[in-house]
Amino acid sequence: MSADTFREDLHRVADWVAEYRENVASRPVLSRTQPGEIARALPDAAPDDPESLDTIIRDLDDILLPGITHWTHPRFFAYFPANNSEPSILAELVTAAMGAQCMSWQTSPSATELEHVVLGWLGDLLGLPDGFEGVIQDTASSATLVSILMARERATGGRFRTQGAGAEGADKLRVYASEEAHSSVEKAVFLSGIGSDNLRRIPVTDDLAMDPDALDDAIRADRDAGLVPCAVVATVGTTSTLAVDPVEQIGHVCKEHGVFLHVDAAFAGSLAALPEMRWLMDGVKLADSFVMNPHKWMYVNFDCSAHWVRDVELLLQTCAIEPEYLKTARDDDVRNYRDWGIPLGRRFRALKLWWVLRSFGADGIRARLRKALTLAEGLEDRVRNDPDLEVVTPGRLGLVCFRPVREALGPAILDHVNNSGEADITHTKIDGRFTLRWHTAQGLTTEEDVDTGWAALRRAIDAASHE
Amino acid sequence: MSADTFREDLHRVADWVAEYRENVASRPVLSRTQPGEIARALPDAAPDDPESLDTIIRDLDDILLPGITHWTHPRFFAYFPANNSEPSILAELVTAAMGAQCMSWQTSPSATELEHVVLGWLGDLLGLPDGFEGVIQDTASSATLVSILMARERATGGRFRTQGAGAEGADKLRVYASEEAHSSVEKAVFLSGIGSDNLRRIPVTDDLAMDPDALDDAIRADRDAGLVPCAVVATVGTTSTLAVDPVEQIGHVCKEHGVFLHVDAAFAGSLAALPEMRWLMDGVKLADSFVMNPHKWMYVNFDCSAHWVRDVELLLQTCAIEPEYLKTARDDDVRNYRDWGIPLGRRFRALKLWWVLRSFGADGIRARLRKALTLAEGLEDRVRNDPDLEVVTPGRLGLVCFRPVREALGPAILDHVNNSGEADITHTKIDGRFTLRWHTAQGLTTEEDVDTGWAALRRAIDAASHE
Repeated sequence: MSADTFREDLHRVADWVAEYRENVASRPVLSRTQPGEIARALPDAAPDDPESLDTIIRDLDDILLPGITHWTHPRFFAYFPANNSEPSILAELVTAAMGAQCMSWQTSPSATELEHVVLGWLGDLLGLPDGFEGVIQDTASSATLVSILMARERATGGRFRTQGAGAEGADKLRVYASEEAHSSVEKAVFLSGIGSDNLRRIPVTDDLAMDPDALDDAIRADRDAGLVPCAVVATVGTTSTLAVDPVEQIGHVCKEHGVFLHVDAAFAGSLAALPEMRWLMDGVKLADSFVMNPHKWMYVNFDCSAHWVRDVELLLQTCAIEPEYLKTARDDDVRNYRDWGIPLGRRFRALKLWWVLRSFGADGIRARLRKALTLAEGLEDRVRNDPDLEVVTPGRLGLVCFRPVREALGPAILDHVNNSGEADITHTKIDGRFTLRWHTAQGLTTEEDVDTGWAALRRAIDAASHE
Repeated sequence: MSADTFREDLHRVADWVAEYRENVASRPVLSRTQPGEIARALPDAAPDDPESLDTIIRDLDDILLPGITHWTHPRFFAYFPANNSEPSILAELVTAAMGAQCMSWQTSPSATELEHVVLGWLGDLLGLPDGFEGVIQDTASSATLVSILMARERATGGRFRTQGAGAEGADKLRVYASEEAHSSVEKAVFLSGIGSDNLRRIPVTDDLAMDPDALDDAIRADRDAGLVPCAVVATVGTTSTLAVDPVEQIGHVCKEHGVFLHVDAAFAGSLAALPEMRWLMDGVKLADSFVMNPHKWMYVNFDCSAHWVRDVELLLQTCAIEPEYLKTARDDDVRNYRDWGIPLGRRFRALKLWWVLRSFGADGIRARLRKALTLAEGLEDRVRNDPDLEVVTPGRLGLVCFRPVREALGPAILDHVNNSGEADITHTKIDGRFTLRWHTAQGLTTEEDVDTGWAALRRAIDAASHE
């Protein structure tokens, strides 16, 4: 393709992108397509001959867009957000153009050194204690898996890596997390070969946070039974309700028993950038690893998960491998992030984090976070004042969980809201009871969006009540 | 940010990108920066206040670009390429703007259905046998890990997942790959909890491909010893030299012994799009899974690894987990790709593959692949005719391995070439002997680039010879 054609095409797509972002609020949030509808609209085979950008953009608009659930829509209140922002989109474009594969320092020194530096910036912004070294993983799932693998190796003196299931003590490892911990913890436990039966779910207290005394009891009972407590995963902001485990107390339990502590703050971790929310980091000084996702609430495109570990040597013993064809003359003097995680190849993910932190500045990040918290508090008030609803967990961290007083209406209300196209919310179960979740952390969300979403919710309640 | 400002910024960065691509050939291929140099040029902390796009682009140009190794440079002959292309860059921009997180069908039906459809296109293009279902993973490393985990579960009746190292037979699993297989195989074996000691390295024949008789012997010996042969990884195009394991013979051995067969065609798999190279797929009909990377040689940005499996049920038994907060009303009718791999969150990676296949067309892809092969054959001739060099493995698949007749000069020649900034090549060891690698598969490489790279190589040989 000629340089001029590419330049033209880029500007054409830039206009598409500007328009998409400007008008995303006019689209239904949740896609209304039926299973198989998109697939049926697509041809069975790749074309033999080149097709024009016109044709591709036409199909993007006509076929694909109706099947997109718009995660950047200001009324995307579902799950946790996978935020982006204007500076992040610009950075992703540059990243794609450079196409650098940043597995080793030498394969793009800027990528490695920027990753190190910008994770330092981020750690300072969050009040991360000294003594951690950071790496960007794709997701918190992968970060948690790496941490569990590190714990596995620490508990077996590195023998799980070499001897596998046959290593002495390999069949005695136990991992602990609260009943409310994310599914990625269980997944890490079974992928790593520890086995899901060996994950002990620790009961929670009334606030849905881990009971540290129950943890201590469980660890003691396991030790007494000849088992090997290996890792605890504490959660700062659970997925269902943003419950915050008492990390400091948990940390002391871990220290006492010599157990690896991983802290999962995937969503709520960003809030630690606010001095008034710095308490979220209490006890992290006792942790062996910590993860939070800039792609969730630091306005950086998915995927970008910030993972800090205390013992880099252990991380390398867990993940590193050095075939001849990857060796470089610099290996002794530099970080080779390929050895800090699961995949070998790596995108230049630090660029977007750098770009966003600079474009917004720390104060700009804090202002955006505070705006979201204010919206959540307002939403909580509305729920509290609505005779048909009750607050299940409050909005202090940006997510309100609630349910209808007529509890059986929950699923129907959910469907009505989401089918309206006006808003997208999701659900969970708390104590087995169907509960609605609504966060206000999408970067474009305004007070008017909460108003509009609220009106859709009210209509949904009325409709469900009359069915 | 106002819509107008964003539009302006996008066009500004679009111009930067167009210029970068137009002029990338004028930059040194391998970054010349020293360890720590980039980090020292960056501030210690994020700014408090927003910084302008001007400032950010200035630092991108002045600080970061000198530390980039330019993977899209037409004289990037190193490793395997992480290709991109103009249509792929456009698609990445759209992907970033939409910011969809495609873990579930419902979180963007188009992403799931396009992924399914476009992997069908790609499979047809490559002559993949019927009976496979595809998913896009980030890298072949991750795909191979997933396949090894599937094999682990198959061999233990799903008990490794639940019982871990304590499962009956968990300590008896053995995995087989050739001495030349990629390091990701060993990594998958130790991450999965099978243990690196339980990877049997099968000897290779003169062409550096796995000896299927030696494989058969090893499996028989292990069975006789009461061990459980669990998986074989065959390689179509090894990393060092592009050796092709005899997959058909290996497949029959696997069938006979009931062993899971994974085929790693990460780089060379793209070539199967050429009828004259379709033999690369021989025996894949006997495989349980197959991986090739569109991001290596199908002109699609990293990361995009196409992973096909035969037994989706086994894949789901291996990776799926379904907490309440991820359930949707559609789960029984749709694919939820979150359950087909390691991380939960997923980028909309299918879009760039679709965009590239349509923009180039199948014939366009084939023309580009053939151009690269012609360049490699020309390079092989040059090496063969140079009295100072000898061909180690031929260029038939796009990579030439060679070494100086004065073998000890190898490392110095490598350094001279790479320090020249004119070209970037890498090395491996074959039978313990230092060997240079030079591929011609970067999308922008022309005959003139091979000329220029050759001149740099000749100067490097002369310089090294006189030291």
